[in-house]
Amino acid sequence: MRSPQSLRNGEIQPPRILSPQFHSTVSVQKLRRFNTLILIFRVASFCFSLAATIFMVTNYRGHNSPNWKDFDAFRFVFAANGIVAVYSFVEMGVSVWEILKGTTLLPETVQVWFDFGHDQVFAYLLLSADAAGTALARTLRETDTCTGENAFCIQSNISIALGFAGFLFLGFSSLLSGFRVVCFIINGSRFHL
Amino acid sequence: MRSPQSLRNGEIQPPRILSPQFHSTVSVQKLRRFNTLILIFRVASFCFSLAATIFMVTNYRGHNSPNWKDFDAFRFVFAANGIVAVYSFVEMGVSVWEILKGTTLLPETVQVWFDFGHDQVFAYLLLSADAAGTALARTLRETDTCTGENAFCIQSNISIALGFAGFLFLGFSSLLSGFRVVCFIINGSRFHL
Repeated sequence: MRSPQSLRNGEIQPPRILSPQFHSTVSVQKLRRFNTLILIFRVASFCFSLAATIFMVTNYRGHNSPNWKDFDAFRFVFAANGIVAVYSFVEMGVSVWEILKGTTLLPETVQVWFDFGHDQVFAYLLLSADAAGTALARTLRETDTCTGENAFCIQSNISIALGFAGFLFLGFSSLLSGFRVVCFIINGSRFHL
Repeated sequence: MRSPQSLRNGEIQPPRILSPQFHSTVSVQKLRRFNTLILIFRVASFCFSLAATIFMVTNYRGHNSPNWKDFDAFRFVFAANGIVAVYSFVEMGVSVWEILKGTTLLPETVQVWFDFGHDQVFAYLLLSADAAGTALARTLRETDTCTGENAFCIQSNISIALGFAGFLFLGFSSLLSGFRVVCFIINGSRFHL
């Protein structure tokens, strides 16, 4: 730490707080790389959730076969994956906007908290839906539903597995957006990573 | 912001960074209140998880009745609640230690990250177990298991509901320990709330 003595000898103290408008090229590049990483996770999360939704919604083979709509847990898997797919799609747009324009779509404070809060809530939502789906799928395995119509159960399992993969990438996004919140709290800016 | 000019006129600049060993009475009191709040959440989480574990493990009424051990999801509910009960008990001890002694049990850095990390992981674990349990309980409701032995299903439902209550308080603890991590990152100390 500098002693107060040195300041009294006519030396001008350098400004400690940089203007929020000023960002070095290095920090801009770092932020761009960071945003690209988030974008990759968002894309992965979107793809897996969308695939899980499609696999679940098409899991129906006529009147004599079991229908995913008759099972609460499968409806939950469908709804949660659908919500996460829509959310990830919106967040992909937000990330692309930020990479291209260099500013956040919403005001910076709102944006970092919005991202982190929604990542957390949707991660819990998706995990609980997939866990519920797994429990139902395991129970069905021993019943007539699966012995009679094995394709139905296999397709449900695939949908749930894709949902878990979506959760994994949403979890990674959540970690990064949490890190961004901490950066924002410390520096008052999402720069200076 | 003070201009550098004022510093050159012989004025002594006050030290900006306080020693980590120095904490004002106000911040110590605030930290004590904060720790007491965490302790309350830990106690609540412990009580609910323990109750859920006991309700599940005693859900057995002789050879001709269904047994919770025969259902994967119920075993998962039991295991997750048991783990959270043990963890909450340990964390209760850690909180009491900190309130009484004024220092953390582990080194401060390790302690704040340990608490936050474990809170997050166990919250996900407990939620997924309870969601899986709910899905199984809803499926069983329409089968002979519940029509023949209703008490088994009611007791399972109570256990799962207690598990959700445990998750709620673990979630609150996780929020507080997350806040403590942020404080620690900003100030280099869990003081100065």
